[in-house]
Amino acid sequence: MLVTGVGGFVGSHVADHCLALGMEVVGIDDFSGGSAENVPRGVEMVIGDLRDASLVRSLWDRGPFNCIYHLAAYAAESLSHYIRRFNYENNLLASVNLLNEAVRHETELFVFVSSSAVYGQGTEPLTEQVLPRPFDPYGIAKYAFEMDLQAAHALFGIEYVIWRPHNIYGERQNIADHYRNVVGIFMNQGLRGEPMTVVGDGFQSRAFSHVDDVAPWIARSPLTPAARNQIFNIGAETSHTVLELAERVAAALGTPCRIRHLPARPEPSHLMVDHAKFRRIFGASEAVGLDEGIRKMAEWARGQKHRPTARFEGIEILRNLPDHWRPAR
Amino acid sequence: MLVTGVGGFVGSHVADHCLALGMEVVGIDDFSGGSAENVPRGVEMVIGDLRDASLVRSLWDRGPFNCIYHLAAYAAESLSHYIRRFNYENNLLASVNLLNEAVRHETELFVFVSSSAVYGQGTEPLTEQVLPRPFDPYGIAKYAFEMDLQAAHALFGIEYVIWRPHNIYGERQNIADHYRNVVGIFMNQGLRGEPMTVVGDGFQSRAFSHVDDVAPWIARSPLTPAARNQIFNIGAETSHTVLELAERVAAALGTPCRIRHLPARPEPSHLMVDHAKFRRIFGASEAVGLDEGIRKMAEWARGQKHRPTARFEGIEILRNLPDHWRPAR
Repeated sequence: MLVTGVGGFVGSHVADHCLALGMEVVGIDDFSGGSAENVPRGVEMVIGDLRDASLVRSLWDRGPFNCIYHLAAYAAESLSHYIRRFNYENNLLASVNLLNEAVRHETELFVFVSSSAVYGQGTEPLTEQVLPRPFDPYGIAKYAFEMDLQAAHALFGIEYVIWRPHNIYGERQNIADHYRNVVGIFMNQGLRGEPMTVVGDGFQSRAFSHVDDVAPWIARSPLTPAARNQIFNIGAETSHTVLELAERVAAALGTPCRIRHLPARPEPSHLMVDHAKFRRIFGASEAVGLDEGIRKMAEWARGQKHRPTARFEGIEILRNLPDHWRPAR
Repeated sequence: MLVTGVGGFVGSHVADHCLALGMEVVGIDDFSGGSAENVPRGVEMVIGDLRDASLVRSLWDRGPFNCIYHLAAYAAESLSHYIRRFNYENNLLASVNLLNEAVRHETELFVFVSSSAVYGQGTEPLTEQVLPRPFDPYGIAKYAFEMDLQAAHALFGIEYVIWRPHNIYGERQNIADHYRNVVGIFMNQGLRGEPMTVVGDGFQSRAFSHVDDVAPWIARSPLTPAARNQIFNIGAETSHTVLELAERVAAALGTPCRIRHLPARPEPSHLMVDHAKFRRIFGASEAVGLDEGIRKMAEWARGQKHRPTARFEGIEILRNLPDHWRPAR
């Protein structure tokens, strides 16, 4: 098995579960967002960037792979408007490099971790039957590769499982990233004694999903025949507002809940994703509620050494960029 | 005005009409598919590749541009399965480079020439209301950029007109290209005294559209206020089978109609595109029927010096590649 983004948050958890299932795992990561300490013991590790087609080709020196789990991505929806080029290179072209090799080497199964971002601001509830209408470059890149993978299935017979998770949080999430993952941002701010920055009024709601309700199922993709060539939404059922989330994080950290509001930006105010298909095919029920999940993550985060908040280098468009994202002068 | 792909088939015609409307035209082309002799007199010409972000940036030394007409592309639907990476670099990333600069420089209008390939094998007839489901990498790249442009409109206010033409043929089409444009392929084969190669049974039908029914309207995009931020199908109304087309080409060239069938490949068997919206907003009726159009093109093609049939270098996947596309050994 090949796991991309194995030093990243979800990728490292998927690799854990693959190893626990007795699979041999080759992992790749460039550690741009992930880190070496996330990589589970037992993974045969390659450090490199999937945008490099010749590096991708050389991965098969360690193959063959029956199955590829493709999780490497830069998943920052709102920022993606300002880093269009980087977004498509990283989230689409890198994926295409991998698919090219998978087709050449007749890999049996390509597990692609897409995102609920493909839906855009859809009518609720979002089932897999709803035709996506992504409205940010991140969602567009994910959706484009979903379609590309399906086209490759039709012509070359490579099988796929496409996952559309939403709002995953949990241990090993990069909490130093300034641009994405509200749970990680709040946790980092709470630990630093800073107010939590809420974009807009904070009444936008999301069903925050603990990684333990997502990664184990992704890992099982090749073991579930009924999942072949299917798309699955995956994530928690219960929505909470961003303000409610801030309170839970503060409570778990034992800090007062101080909020600083930032100007609203274009994002769906509510997202109601239907997981019935996933629960039917995989027989999965929800394991980790928000309170428990936040508590587990807070415990982990407290043990982390401080990492400085990284700024994204190479923002392509400064026009309309929210002030708090502006590069320092 | 900036016209990309100005040395190409449709781009050169659009530039003609822009000049006739009194516009100043800066043109760019890398002459990979187009040629210098196609570029209309009066165009201020830049030779370069839009995949090069710094070259794209330098175009604005000749600006500002009120309007960009983006026609540069490598439009080979069926081949795109085998050149995925090239396809997305050329048809999506190059477009994103251009859009980045357009947003930075507050360009007013971005005219994007997309393709009916975005629809895939849709239910008929295809109106602009039908949500696209492209099924080849070419159509996916075009659709991804349509969505990206609309996302940029929403966030940055840049206006757009998106065109989805189908099956354009006519004078200045690259008839030496082995991989695309059945009219050009037939004409080239007829002129060389070779049999015309029909993919599959030849009963697949298309509404072949003469460039004079397409390019003038694209050129008028900025002059039609009701067209702003709209998508338009454009092309001929009457469908003909590929076999009928072969007969017309042979008749226009005065050669016998000899056919050689090649194995079928995945493509829609019929495509019925609805142009009511375009005809309503632009008040356009069809000007050039197939007989007249083929006659005009044949007359032009006879006067062309022989160009060898170019082979595409850099095919990425050889698996399942049709035999007649295989690189020579």
